[in-house]
Amino acid sequence: MRVGVLGSRGKVGAEVVQAVETADDLDLTVGVDQGDAISALVDTGTQVVVDFTHPDVVMDNLRFCIDHGIHAVVGTTGFDDDRLATLRGWLAESPGTGVLIAPNFSIGAILMMRFSTIAAPFFESVEVVELHHPTKADAPSGTARRTAEMIAAARREAGSPPIPDATSTGLDGARGADVDGIRVHGLRIRGLVAHQEVVLGGLGETLTIRHDSLDRVSFTPGVLTGIRRIGDFPGLTIGLEHLLDV
Amino acid sequence: MRVGVLGSRGKVGAEVVQAVETADDLDLTVGVDQGDAISALVDTGTQVVVDFTHPDVVMDNLRFCIDHGIHAVVGTTGFDDDRLATLRGWLAESPGTGVLIAPNFSIGAILMMRFSTIAAPFFESVEVVELHHPTKADAPSGTARRTAEMIAAARREAGSPPIPDATSTGLDGARGADVDGIRVHGLRIRGLVAHQEVVLGGLGETLTIRHDSLDRVSFTPGVLTGIRRIGDFPGLTIGLEHLLDV
Amino acid sequence: MRVGVLGSRGKVGAEVVQAVETADDLDLTVGVDQGDAISALVDTGTQVVVDFTHPDVVMDNLRFCIDHGIHAVVGTTGFDDDRLATLRGWLAESPGTGVLIAPNFSIGAILMMRFSTIAAPFFESVEVVELHHPTKADAPSGTARRTAEMIAAARREAGSPPIPDATSTGLDGARGADVDGIRVHGLRIRGLVAHQEVVLGGLGETLTIRHDSLDRVSFTPGVLTGIRRIGDFPGLTIGLEHLLDV
Amino acid sequence: MRVGVLGSRGKVGAEVVQAVETADDLDLTVGVDQGDAISALVDTGTQVVVDFTHPDVVMDNLRFCIDHGIHAVVGTTGFDDDRLATLRGWLAESPGTGVLIAPNFSIGAILMMRFSTIAAPFFESVEVVELHHPTKADAPSGTARRTAEMIAAARREAGSPPIPDATSTGLDGARGADVDGIRVHGLRIRGLVAHQEVVLGGLGETLTIRHDSLDRVSFTPGVLTGIRRIGDFPGLTIGLEHLLDV
Repeated sequence: MRVGVLGSRGKVGAEVVQAVETADDLDLTVGVDQGDAISALVDTGTQVVVDFTHPDVVMDNLRFCIDHGIHAVVGTTGFDDDRLATLRGWLAESPGTGVLIAPNFSIGAILMMRFSTIAAPFFESVEVVELHHPTKADAPSGTARRTAEMIAAARREAGSPPIPDATSTGLDGARGADVDGIRVHGLRIRGLVAHQEVVLGGLGETLTIRHDSLDRVSFTPGVLTGIRRIGDFPGLTIGLEHLLDV
Repeated sequence: MRVGVLGSRGKVGAEVVQAVETADDLDLTVGVDQGDAISALVDTGTQVVVDFTHPDVVMDNLRFCIDHGIHAVVGTTGFDDDRLATLRGWLAESPGTGVLIAPNFSIGAILMMRFSTIAAPFFESVEVVELHHPTKADAPSGTARRTAEMIAAARREAGSPPIPDATSTGLDGARGADVDGIRVHGLRIRGLVAHQEVVLGGLGETLTIRHDSLDRVSFTPGVLTGIRRIGDFPGLTIGLEHLLDV
Repeated sequence: MRVGVLGSRGKVGAEVVQAVETADDLDLTVGVDQGDAISALVDTGTQVVVDFTHPDVVMDNLRFCIDHGIHAVVGTTGFDDDRLATLRGWLAESPGTGVLIAPNFSIGAILMMRFSTIAAPFFESVEVVELHHPTKADAPSGTARRTAEMIAAARREAGSPPIPDATSTGLDGARGADVDGIRVHGLRIRGLVAHQEVVLGGLGETLTIRHDSLDRVSFTPGVLTGIRRIGDFPGLTIGLEHLLDV
Repeated sequence: MRVGVLGSRGKVGAEVVQAVETADDLDLTVGVDQGDAISALVDTGTQVVVDFTHPDVVMDNLRFCIDHGIHAVVGTTGFDDDRLATLRGWLAESPGTGVLIAPNFSIGAILMMRFSTIAAPFFESVEVVELHHPTKADAPSGTARRTAEMIAAARREAGSPPIPDATSTGLDGARGADVDGIRVHGLRIRGLVAHQEVVLGGLGETLTIRHDSLDRVSFTPGVLTGIRRIGDFPGLTIGLEHLLDV
């Protein structure tokens, strides 16, 4: 499979370049960054591009790729409903071409969220604990919030009863934040990177699903999976989870 | 739903009786044990039975239930291929009746095995750690062995490469037991009950799925789930996992 | 060593009786409960008593034991400053006799608190997570609060700087309760018993100290340690930690 | 406190330079590496040096420092009994000067080993689990082996009975490696760095002490502690644990 990289000299793009070069089944065709001609993608027979660039240029990049039938795996941010509608329009005119836009390429994080959501209706109790470095500005983390929302939705749909909690006295904050009825706790500890644990419990047993992200290169296996599978998903796909068979 | 319990005065059966009585959506019709007439199941309009009895009597119990169109959730052991074939024959003549035979009713354990199997092909590394009380005779545990076999099969099917391991020097046993290429470690610690952790890792991240069984009543939620769902699974089903939508 | 048990037919007392009978180096002399004559302790040559009785009777029990030079290991509650002063007065007149009053006999819990306190000044960050069954009324748990207070005091004494935390936006409660500047988080999960984790972190590393109490018999090893060591601690001792060489 | 760094352009030395410059209470006087004059240490009024150099040059470095009454914190390897005897001789002639030689500067690792050793005699069971990246050559890790040896020695000294283990059937290696009677398990997982967990258990409870090293900069707080405290430890000290009050 012939792969090009847009934003190839950026921090993330450079990691992608290296990961593609290392993978036995992928060939790097060309890296394109500011000042380079995007037409090199066509000249080199690129089949899939990876785009970690900037909201200002990503739409032009995608227009070019879709026009030339090149699949795209996109980690760039800034897609609102208007942009997504525009992309769907372009893709309708290029049947067979696939674009994946993913806010998170960590397969571990995606599976953690997915498994927690599947398991949540089978247990009486479920809470989320996230642990990060102390320079993080928001608490709880965006991933923890999204996980709690997904869990709450799954329980609503399954008709799960409220989670039992007899707490009647104590200190403010001891039971964490309430996200759609799911308790979420955030720790800030020097030395940690990004970690999350979902604890589920029923009569006499608990199930714990924990994701530890120890290095930011953890996104590369997800990008490679996106490259390998996007060809089977024509049209617009939002979220890497849809390319995993889970 | 009207539920009867076979083996109602046994240790496990008594727990099932209590769990059924506590559940809002289930009515206990009758408990049947040695010396009681099984016909009481019919007299009381029982729709589903739970059988935790003995290999010597379970086939007679099931013959009666199937003949009368009563679904059965069975935790009794001792089913070989002959017995399963016999059951399938009886069920063929009683369309709409369902029998579930399950070696394990812990939903946490089932999900732990299932999620590990799904996740295994997405990571480079995976190992299994089980922890039990020190009076256990076998190491590794049956559940750990089965988990490793399922993981190995999933990786074979997905074409996963061998798990990396540069160990070239050390002590015998340090890397655990080898079950189909998956490393399995068993700890024996006073104070513990039955616990298992599956550790999966890829570039820069790990995913850990842990099941803690702290009390043997952990089987009851699985039995209740079996009772509630067996009606939708006519014929013979082996393993509670098939009744969970996962 | 000859050991008597006061409150021998109570739930806890009965466990102590059994533990003493099982220990090779201890002889049970007599169990005393409501309606029994306490003089049996003297008649049987009892050297140490264990008292798990009631605030209403414990002072009379201890008066008798101290008068007769019998050491006492006490798990009964209800000791205020007045009572402690009274005990000290009695003990002054019976040199060589020791009384241990302990709110917690779990050696695991005591070591967890002790190690956390020792370690806390060596790390930039420290937080406490406690996990209990959902029928618990208070959050955080008393043990978690006490742990946080001990950690805070140790850091104050060592001149540790404030714990770093850049949180500037988020949801109420996400960062837990504040106990003397230490963040404490409480989870309530069906299936759990009583668990606590102290997470400490510095540049590039973390240290986690976790105590899991899975069964209430966990107090018995601490009681046995108290019995064996109280003879070496004449006078009044409050807290089992003082009898452990840690 | 005025601090010099020997080997200041090496990988580790450069980290030390940065850590010293960042610390409010420490002043960097001079970095010395190959080709630089060591006399700069004296010219700049250096009080403490840190030496991460090479076995070939470390003895000359220390001779110079001891002669000039400069304390030394040494992470360089290659000290045998002869070298240690030589150092002791030099230090005898320079009373008040302290030299610390430490194989491990991670405070987390040191406390994990120390706490495990203290706790081990109080519990019936104890096992060690270490987890590392899959490119590690030895299993178990040196730290895990040393931890097990320290635990075994502490239990021997306390007269602890053998650890209970009823395993009578199973697979080779399932129960780990045997280090002086302590079971040690090694996992090799992509994405991990260096992690160790000591699990202790008694009746109804467990205590778990876990160290996670996520980045090699984890040695710097230990080096800074060495710098700050070596002045109070004249003579030769081997092992950072002796400078911690634990």
